[in-house]
Amino acid sequence: MQKYNLPLIGITMGDPSGIGPEIIIKAFTNTDLYNFCIPVVIGDRNILNHVANKILKKEININTLKKPKDAISSKDTINLISISSLKYYKPGIADIEGGRAMVSYIEHAVSMALKKELDAIVTCPINKSLMHASGFSYDGHTPFIAHLTGTKDYVMMLAGIHLHVTLVTIHVAISKVSSLITKERVLKTIYITADALINDFKIKSPRVAVAGLNPHAGEGGLFGNEEEVISEAIKDAEKRLKINIYGPLPPDTVYYRASKGEFDVVVSMYHDQGLIPLKLLHFSDAVNITLGLPIVRTSVDHGTAYDIAGKGIADESSLVSAIKMAAFIANNRKEKLDKD
Amino acid sequence: MQKYNLPLIGITMGDPSGIGPEIIIKAFTNTDLYNFCIPVVIGDRNILNHVANKILKKEININTLKKPKDAISSKDTINLISISSLKYYKPGIADIEGGRAMVSYIEHAVSMALKKELDAIVTCPINKSLMHASGFSYDGHTPFIAHLTGTKDYVMMLAGIHLHVTLVTIHVAISKVSSLITKERVLKTIYITADALINDFKIKSPRVAVAGLNPHAGEGGLFGNEEEVISEAIKDAEKRLKINIYGPLPPDTVYYRASKGEFDVVVSMYHDQGLIPLKLLHFSDAVNITLGLPIVRTSVDHGTAYDIAGKGIADESSLVSAIKMAAFIANNRKEKLDKD
Repeated sequence: MQKYNLPLIGITMGDPSGIGPEIIIKAFTNTDLYNFCIPVVIGDRNILNHVANKILKKEININTLKKPKDAISSKDTINLISISSLKYYKPGIADIEGGRAMVSYIEHAVSMALKKELDAIVTCPINKSLMHASGFSYDGHTPFIAHLTGTKDYVMMLAGIHLHVTLVTIHVAISKVSSLITKERVLKTIYITADALINDFKIKSPRVAVAGLNPHAGEGGLFGNEEEVISEAIKDAEKRLKINIYGPLPPDTVYYRASKGEFDVVVSMYHDQGLIPLKLLHFSDAVNITLGLPIVRTSVDHGTAYDIAGKGIADESSLVSAIKMAAFIANNRKEKLDKD
Repeated sequence: MQKYNLPLIGITMGDPSGIGPEIIIKAFTNTDLYNFCIPVVIGDRNILNHVANKILKKEININTLKKPKDAISSKDTINLISISSLKYYKPGIADIEGGRAMVSYIEHAVSMALKKELDAIVTCPINKSLMHASGFSYDGHTPFIAHLTGTKDYVMMLAGIHLHVTLVTIHVAISKVSSLITKERVLKTIYITADALINDFKIKSPRVAVAGLNPHAGEGGLFGNEEEVISEAIKDAEKRLKINIYGPLPPDTVYYRASKGEFDVVVSMYHDQGLIPLKLLHFSDAVNITLGLPIVRTSVDHGTAYDIAGKGIADESSLVSAIKMAAFIANNRKEKLDKD
């Protein structure tokens, strides 16, 4: 029976040569996903059939549809909007046809989400070089989706049950991080983070911690002084948001404190500052959430894993978490709309 | 009854105004320390008596002695070499007399360890500004002990049951770290780390992981290229030590892998890279070990905690771990001497 109140979640199949098709089939056959949402895959019928039958030896029903509203809620049935018909399945080998298809899944999913035909999208991993080779020169999945949705400012959050982190800078050499820690950038990250906690996570008064950049948060300027601009950003954000923001706090203890429940999120200054503790606690079940988009978008927290693609051993935990998180946020946004 | 084979461990009382006296008394009355070692405190009889009776309301016997060899092994008895007679106890307030005394405990303990009257020393926290005010301009506890023992090259290890890390750079602003990642410095850290694992921890073929500096260990130069000198250091160390060394590995997963048992240690490039994961897993029971000294020295992994000193609420776990770790290493070194 169709559960009419559940959010419709679009799941892009990602790079066909990666583990996307496998984790999608595993997620749909192993879990209680149908209690949380009505999932719709945007991908390729040939590939999913092949991976299910030949690689995973699973009996699945594929319910092909044109529009998400025609999706059904039935275990072992995969709702699929099939928008490519790839002839070859080459796990672990980048293929230009697959690359073009992978980009088209994203474009189609985002377009449906913008038209409210989907309540959220969840993306399976793509190969960045393959995206470039296919004629799309975006610096990754997220910038591409930002472009498609006309978004300038967005923030990456990585989340698990015990810890949520957002990042001020992402793929940047350590030697370059300091020059990117500006008041404007920190303020924007705090603002988008707090806004998401309030509206997407339904936390009325979020407890936002902001990490310092340097050891001991600089120890009064002894080990760096970037904490001064971080402090200024915190003060401005507090005025604007009317909530308490804690920091800049010593990085070596703030993640422990957050993991024990003292803070709802840690705004982190650089990639490894946030990702080392996140992956230590949530190696296989972390979710990547793009905050600041007009649509709800979550993603798995891993890559295409070419080295294990096609072997049937990929772990679907991160995809399952990403779908549940997307459903959670979509429900919260709907509730807000209902109230407004 | 004296247990003659147990190592004699000297414990310096640290800053009298900090939590050192409290955690010493708690450690001696609460735990099974006497099964691991014969502990001897180097400190102040007046202060320990006062803290035991007035703050902690504990009945303790203080066995005052001149030489560690006269120590006895009896629960609720504190073996004490009392080398100061402080008149005032001012918890939480730096005092110059206390500062001089605190330095003298270290000098005396190191001198006894160098003469083999002690098998190891464990240090309680000191206040660095107070040390400076007392006329000792060393950049902290460890450089002072290095000076007293005539040691040029040493490495800080932080250890808990699940994770051991050593640091190539320590109290340095993030913007300065890159310039300090030289082949020589990385090589020296790997070498001292591996040597300690072999001789102090009795691991025949230690599995040493070396973290990269940058996100994804630089991703082939895309996010920084310090990984090149790290690689060169690893190659040289492998030749010299004849063991496998793994790296430079992506920082965001190497600590998880080590915590699951894949590596015995992670050589870390900067303070927070190593300390964020260490404190996440071992917030209250981590031990600080100085590798490369001619004596065995461990330390608690926290400061003087002036804010809670004198309240009787300080947690002795780190001191207990530090004493047990000192005993473990001292036994291993003794065994080696017996064999040689």
